[in-house]
Amino acid sequence: MAEYILPIRRLIEEFRRLPGVGAKTAARYAFAVLSLSDDEAARFSDAIISIKRDVHKCPICMGLSSSPDSCEICADPERDRSVICVVENAKDVVVMEKVRGYRGLYHVLGGALSPLDNVTPESLAIRELIERVESREVAELIIATNPTPSGDTTATYLARILENYPVKVSRLAYGIPVGGDIEYADEITLYRAMEGRRYFDNHK
Amino acid sequence: MAEYILPIRRLIEEFRRLPGVGAKTAARYAFAVLSLSDDEAARFSDAIISIKRDVHKCPICMGLSSSPDSCEICADPERDRSVICVVENAKDVVVMEKVRGYRGLYHVLGGALSPLDNVTPESLAIRELIERVESREVAELIIATNPTPSGDTTATYLARILENYPVKVSRLAYGIPVGGDIEYADEITLYRAMEGRRYFDNHK
Repeated sequence: MAEYILPIRRLIEEFRRLPGVGAKTAARYAFAVLSLSDDEAARFSDAIISIKRDVHKCPICMGLSSSPDSCEICADPERDRSVICVVENAKDVVVMEKVRGYRGLYHVLGGALSPLDNVTPESLAIRELIERVESREVAELIIATNPTPSGDTTATYLARILENYPVKVSRLAYGIPVGGDIEYADEITLYRAMEGRRYFDNHK
Repeated sequence: MAEYILPIRRLIEEFRRLPGVGAKTAARYAFAVLSLSDDEAARFSDAIISIKRDVHKCPICMGLSSSPDSCEICADPERDRSVICVVENAKDVVVMEKVRGYRGLYHVLGGALSPLDNVTPESLAIRELIERVESREVAELIIATNPTPSGDTTATYLARILENYPVKVSRLAYGIPVGGDIEYADEITLYRAMEGRRYFDNHK
């Protein structure tokens, strides 16, 4: 044979769809599933169906919602509806939510501009963002796209097309990460950290 | 929230059962599943059910079989029934099958002796191996347990309990891996390679 039997090969193929999973890792995962109990395997199998069935896109922020209506954040009357933090992916919302003190809303673009990968303004949720800005409830947009070329391009693009709207647009600061070591910071980060330096209050 | 919604958390928990998968990797996998089409997700989910439902243990070699009867190898009339290669795990059969030229059968122990982990001779398929040896069809056992302390213990144990049976017992050679670099071989491997050295035919 020199090959696994069909049901094992099939699951290996499925695991190989996951990011960064090669043939050997996929085989390790498949054998791990094989050693689960029937109940555990059924739960795993069901969780895959459920993530597709029970996760919806919030019609307001385009983030993830557990109901077909607006997500928990957009529906929360306690949140400040005048500030929107614009992120690339739904996952980033959870990351930003860990920042204590941010009580505004979000907008998930669904990626970042990258003409080479066919990601154009039309393929991102930019029209929906403009509609939210036009609703006049929004006073500030904080662009929190990734510090990458495509994230930067997206941020600059948004800042430009929003020029004529009565909304302030800002971008997360670049700089050395807290707890990091300057020795290990790359040149571009250090350059941006110099550029964005903050004066002490008594030295302004 | 600062947390993923329930259907995502559930799938993350399932992925975390897989060997070497931490919280971040599991989240990456869950989001990869979320971006599959419904059909693809259904196929993935079904492959998990199938590996539990359609993979059986071969009643002869204890390896994996796609039917409840004997596996393809044990059922193959072309295989040499007088030689059995004894391996720790079902996965090892596929590895050994890549060795061109081996046409014997296999026996899967289901692990290696390790008293500290409660793996005793009774928890391995050793009784079944002895029954196969007693059937008198077998002339040679090639022990291919892993080159680890527990694999070595298992090999020595098997050689000892099979002393009184009319069967030859051998063990895979230890040595430097082909294509490897002596500089990077560890001392124990080099010692074993010295010990197991082979004389050139014209120097015996």
